[in-house]
Amino acid sequence: TTTEMAGWGTFFFSLLNYKTEKYVIAENRKIGILFRIYQLAVLGYIIGWVFVMKKGYQEREEAIQSSVITKLKGVTLTNSSESGLHLWSAEDYVIPPNGEQVFFVVTNYIETPNQRLGFCAEVSGHINESLLSPSGIKTGLCINSTGTCEIHAWCPVEHSKRPTVPLMSEAENFTIYIKNFIRFPKFEFSKSNVLDTTDDSYLKRCSYDQVDHPYCPIFRLGDLVKWAGHDFQDMAAKGGSVGILIEWYCDLDKDYSQCNPQYSFTRLDINLNNSVTSGYNFRYARYYKDQNGETFRTLYKVYGIRFDIMINGQAGKFNIIPTIIAIGSGVALLGIVSYLHDIVAELELHCRTVWNKSILKENRVNYPL
Amino acid sequence: TTTEMAGWGTFFFSLLNYKTEKYVIAENRKIGILFRIYQLAVLGYIIGWVFVMKKGYQEREEAIQSSVITKLKGVTLTNSSESGLHLWSAEDYVIPPNGEQVFFVVTNYIETPNQRLGFCAEVSGHINESLLSPSGIKTGLCINSTGTCEIHAWCPVEHSKRPTVPLMSEAENFTIYIKNFIRFPKFEFSKSNVLDTTDDSYLKRCSYDQVDHPYCPIFRLGDLVKWAGHDFQDMAAKGGSVGILIEWYCDLDKDYSQCNPQYSFTRLDINLNNSVTSGYNFRYARYYKDQNGETFRTLYKVYGIRFDIMINGQAGKFNIIPTIIAIGSGVALLGIVSYLHDIVAELELHCRTVWNKSILKENRVNYPL
Amino acid sequence: TTTEMAGWGTFFFSLLNYKTEKYVIAENRKIGILFRIYQLAVLGYIIGWVFVMKKGYQEREEAIQSSVITKLKGVTLTNSSESGLHLWSAEDYVIPPNGEQVFFVVTNYIETPNQRLGFCAEVSGHINESLLSPSGIKTGLCINSTGTCEIHAWCPVEHSKRPTVPLMSEAENFTIYIKNFIRFPKFEFSKSNVLDTTDDSYLKRCSYDQVDHPYCPIFRLGDLVKWAGHDFQDMAAKGGSVGILIEWYCDLDKDYSQCNPQYSFTRLDINLNNSVTSGYNFRYARYYKDQNGETFRTLYKVYGIRFDIMINGQAGKFNIIPTIIAIGSGVALLGIVSYLHDIVAELELHCRTVWNKSILKENRVNYPL
Repeated sequence: TTTEMAGWGTFFFSLLNYKTEKYVIAENRKIGILFRIYQLAVLGYIIGWVFVMKKGYQEREEAIQSSVITKLKGVTLTNSSESGLHLWSAEDYVIPPNGEQVFFVVTNYIETPNQRLGFCAEVSGHINESLLSPSGIKTGLCINSTGTCEIHAWCPVEHSKRPTVPLMSEAENFTIYIKNFIRFPKFEFSKSNVLDTTDDSYLKRCSYDQVDHPYCPIFRLGDLVKWAGHDFQDMAAKGGSVGILIEWYCDLDKDYSQCNPQYSFTRLDINLNNSVTSGYNFRYARYYKDQNGETFRTLYKVYGIRFDIMINGQAGKFNIIPTIIAIGSGVALLGIVSYLHDIVAELELHCRTVWNKSILKENRVNYPL
Repeated sequence: TTTEMAGWGTFFFSLLNYKTEKYVIAENRKIGILFRIYQLAVLGYIIGWVFVMKKGYQEREEAIQSSVITKLKGVTLTNSSESGLHLWSAEDYVIPPNGEQVFFVVTNYIETPNQRLGFCAEVSGHINESLLSPSGIKTGLCINSTGTCEIHAWCPVEHSKRPTVPLMSEAENFTIYIKNFIRFPKFEFSKSNVLDTTDDSYLKRCSYDQVDHPYCPIFRLGDLVKWAGHDFQDMAAKGGSVGILIEWYCDLDKDYSQCNPQYSFTRLDINLNNSVTSGYNFRYARYYKDQNGETFRTLYKVYGIRFDIMINGQAGKFNIIPTIIAIGSGVALLGIVSYLHDIVAELELHCRTVWNKSILKENRVNYPL
Repeated sequence: TTTEMAGWGTFFFSLLNYKTEKYVIAENRKIGILFRIYQLAVLGYIIGWVFVMKKGYQEREEAIQSSVITKLKGVTLTNSSESGLHLWSAEDYVIPPNGEQVFFVVTNYIETPNQRLGFCAEVSGHINESLLSPSGIKTGLCINSTGTCEIHAWCPVEHSKRPTVPLMSEAENFTIYIKNFIRFPKFEFSKSNVLDTTDDSYLKRCSYDQVDHPYCPIFRLGDLVKWAGHDFQDMAAKGGSVGILIEWYCDLDKDYSQCNPQYSFTRLDINLNNSVTSGYNFRYARYYKDQNGETFRTLYKVYGIRFDIMINGQAGKFNIIPTIIAIGSGVALLGIVSYLHDIVAELELHCRTVWNKSILKENRVNYPL
């Protein structure tokens, strides 16, 4: 029983102190190196990926709340032979006028004034110019020589061609003021893209610049289109669609001033040089009544640029729960590895001890013989 | 020491060649089978789920950028006893008219022309018909016999009943042209749901069909409502809301032509056969001034269908980083298993060797006796 | 060979019955306790976190489909010295009037009637009052004594100051009816925030209350602003933006009646007490023609509150696949632990057996001597 006790003593000793038993580690160099590599990989993953890259110690908020108010500034006078002098200010060229996140700016138009309900000849070239808007109901009377038919419609029908040079080419210098408020409700954090200044005149004269004026939210239309990689005058003639993306990726463990909006600009309708699918236009009418109570209207076919302001964002802030989970899973992973190592080393040692002992004893048995 | 060296020789031999030692595997059949099953499960999970199902080798892009331009085509003439002849074209029946992603198409209406500010009798039946729009301010004068009171309002007040047959039943044949451009900015990939053809006439005559014309984005309103599982004429009378979902799930490792839009259509307002909560209507007014500068207006209560175009999408493309992570985690999982197996087998063998040796030696010790 | 057979018998016996061999567990108390703790931690994680907290047995649907229809009710009479008597009903003060998810309610305004295109003097104070809307094009003629210049514009130009007390202060008592339908397409589940009642009068008289009337979707504007933490009259004078968030988090394994909307209200534009960036206003014009066919207009600068209704939601329902995956990963985790335990215990026992045997034999060898 003394030898047995000694064996167990060695076993428990090895259990506690295996790491100091150099020869065990030396003997199991292959296992040891593999374990160390695995431990380093796990540690690197936990620290490098989970903590530094993914900020696993932070609680995240993706449900950004956002409010956008837009306002356009600029006046232009158009003078076409057909519709005479027109003064366009923001209440006219911004559709809808109510400062929304998505709005259309008129840059070119065809005006058909004083239309009245009646009977007139279809415009023969009309079908070819416009894909989707025949303007009336055929009565059945057709003139075979010209190929045109009589229609019941608002007469005279729209027949002008789209001006190839945009009538409102000065729209390039209009400015748009984008006031964006964001909130991360979970963190009770809110910020705006407008400089928090008492100097009112700054926000009247400034112009957005990524480096010098990142908190001046005033943009020239021409710049917006240029930054999206297109030419304003080309786009103004036929119309198009431009996206303004404002991104707020905020690490709220850092200073308030480190949470800044990032702007990017893209053309959303890809012009494939296909006359059918390119451009942006629609019609609207203004209705009037004359002194006899009869209705007449002015029809506008407007071409222009639709601006679509998109807000994205995400915030992260230190929180004890994700930190514990991240550390816990890291410790668990490391723990499994270390634990496996312990078990393997311990068993190795134990078996070694048993073996050595049995050899010794045998030797003891043999030698006396 | 010779036996000890021999023992270690066997140990290292077993460390390297355990797999060829048939008797070890035979002896540990239970452990071996469990390990093989686990390895197969892990391999199946990695290959089947991570790679084939979840495409773990791809970088994903969920921030689809999208632009929708809509255009309606169709003209209808309505003739009601109260408001006379009306010609409705897209600029009138699409609200708002500016080609947006969410728009309302008028299919039925009540017109109340020539209202002027003044004093008139409340319409007694009005409250029962309309939930939320009393039309004026009570002056306090009430006629007890009829139960109606005088109001300061736009007179005459709206008093007609909603036509049970939609006045614009022909709206069923109106067509809607939906031009949808999408972009996956991370991959610089963009596509449109419109056939990229030089044959302009195709896009004038075609009609969407899932099989034959998937790239013709022209839809009959009647079809849209039918595909959403409802009857157009029913819906047109009271109004409703229809969702058009366009989904772009694209594997950009495949050909450009494999990234196609999928359309689905649903009714968004569930009609619970409850007269209060069903239907869609609102009022708007057109204002006029007579030669004396006095204002009068025409009030329209319009019933119709709101179409809500929703774009969803996701793209994936091969990228070396997620591939490495996916393979790495797979190898790690397999590695743990194989490694466990190695350790177990090796220790088994080692103990076996020790045991055999001690038995042999004992035998050797015993037999000579 | 008999002793060898006996050794193997003990080994296989230990493989199957190690748990009943008290002394092994007793001897490896340290290992055993650690394993038990780890098993408990894994079980707690699986049951507590994966199943109870995260409902890992449920299939989730985050793509909520939603339709919102809004309707405002309320009439107010304004009487200003400049523009006389005005009756404002929903078709006038809701912009746009078509019952959308985002809408603006006019609460204050400046009216500039009977503007005609012409030449007039710039209003000197204008620039200071309004940031972004100079109202015309300078002709070049300037009066040096006053510092004003002649402009080509709609004359007379807007020159009134914003009323400090909102003209439509009664808007506080207007009510908004929000009809919200949601659908979880994956589960074919749909619900509305409107009480499904046949008692029409309930929805005419009720008022939303979180406890008593959670299914009455009628809100007083004053209450909405109050719940967002602000004062209606303050906000009405300058304008602002209020978010109404409706959240549907539904466990569809529970009863239909357990899936309820949760409302929350926030002010989206943070008023930083900065006169430039606060408030919400825009301009629109109504165009008229006189009997000579000349155009004149009435310009409105309206201040008001924009309401933005945001719908969020998520549903979960029992599904066999996530349940199997959750249980499978749990079993796998537990299995690794138990398996490790088995291996360790078994090897311990085996080594112990070998050791004991060698000692016994040696004893046997020794004693006979």
